[in-house]
Amino acid sequence: MTHFRPVALEHASRLINHGPTVLVTSAHGGRRNVMAAAWSMPVEFTPPRIAVVIDKSTFTRELVAASGAFGICIPGAALVDLTYAVGSVSGRTTDKFAQHGIEVAQGPVLGLPVIEAGCAAWLECRLIPERHTEDAYDTCFAEVVAAAADARIFSDGHWSFRDDNGDLQTIHHLGAGNFVRAGGVLKARHA
Amino acid sequence: MTHFRPVALEHASRLINHGPTVLVTSAHGGRRNVMAAAWSMPVEFTPPRIAVVIDKSTFTRELVAASGAFGICIPGAALVDLTYAVGSVSGRTTDKFAQHGIEVAQGPVLGLPVIEAGCAAWLECRLIPERHTEDAYDTCFAEVVAAAADARIFSDGHWSFRDDNGDLQTIHHLGAGNFVRAGGVLKARHA
Repeated sequence: MTHFRPVALEHASRLINHGPTVLVTSAHGGRRNVMAAAWSMPVEFTPPRIAVVIDKSTFTRELVAASGAFGICIPGAALVDLTYAVGSVSGRTTDKFAQHGIEVAQGPVLGLPVIEAGCAAWLECRLIPERHTEDAYDTCFAEVVAAAADARIFSDGHWSFRDDNGDLQTIHHLGAGNFVRAGGVLKARHA
Repeated sequence: MTHFRPVALEHASRLINHGPTVLVTSAHGGRRNVMAAAWSMPVEFTPPRIAVVIDKSTFTRELVAASGAFGICIPGAALVDLTYAVGSVSGRTTDKFAQHGIEVAQGPVLGLPVIEAGCAAWLECRLIPERHTEDAYDTCFAEVVAAAADARIFSDGHWSFRDDNGDLQTIHHLGAGNFVRAGGVLKARHA
């Protein structure tokens, strides 16, 4: 049974607001891929738009250019090994989903492969072609057209990091396979 | 006594690799400002380049456009209230440094105001003018020209999140004044 529930588009930016490392999924012409990306951020709340850095040498970048779309999946702490693994090899010659036994769901709007098991959330994104920033900075802008999250950690538009959902808490790559887990909520005094 | 030490430019991207909420500092013509920004990311290791979203309505954006530069300071957990406070009001009519008693150091290359007390690190950044992405996505690209970090949490090019430096651990904004603290290092199996 999936715990995933749709996230309203006006709340989609919140899924990556705190800087988690993400998995970028893509598909085109019968091929598909998944890679890790530490560099992503929202750029607009409404319409929900994001930017993600996808190196121009990657197979993902080829699939994204061809399909005009990608998925963003937000791995929980239980997927730290998988995240590092899919970030360390190319999918050009290997189907990493099959190799790692990753169960794939289908995004409702763009039909992209998205990952729910072990992930806190996913977003389906339509590329906004920006040739110059893609070339100069490997930075791809996109509009979020669908999103969903595991209700055990994100519901009613809000994250809830608790003692009982540590495996779903987001991971943040420091470099060289070292991640920190987000946790320990701090509330600002005048918030 | 400051614990800040220079960070080699090839390691500068690592300071924001894991998605912390940052403080953007700026100065021009005798005015200065500091604001919080949740949306930033590296885009290139060498030369070290970053992107940060700075809304076009902000005073910071005015100062950055006029000076062609900004600072990125990375607040530790002890500055969660300050981070939220400087992200909630405009600096157009108030000097937020003075208002909050923020001690300011001077960046060595661009002379920008940077914050050390309570921060884990700072970066001096030279704007790379990109009119279209600044207009369309409020996304400002920049090259990092100097960086430094508190050696108690970042040294020899690596973060070290430990039990004894919790106050310097980075904070990540979930929204509405709720932050998570990065901590609890997870090492991927094959890293």
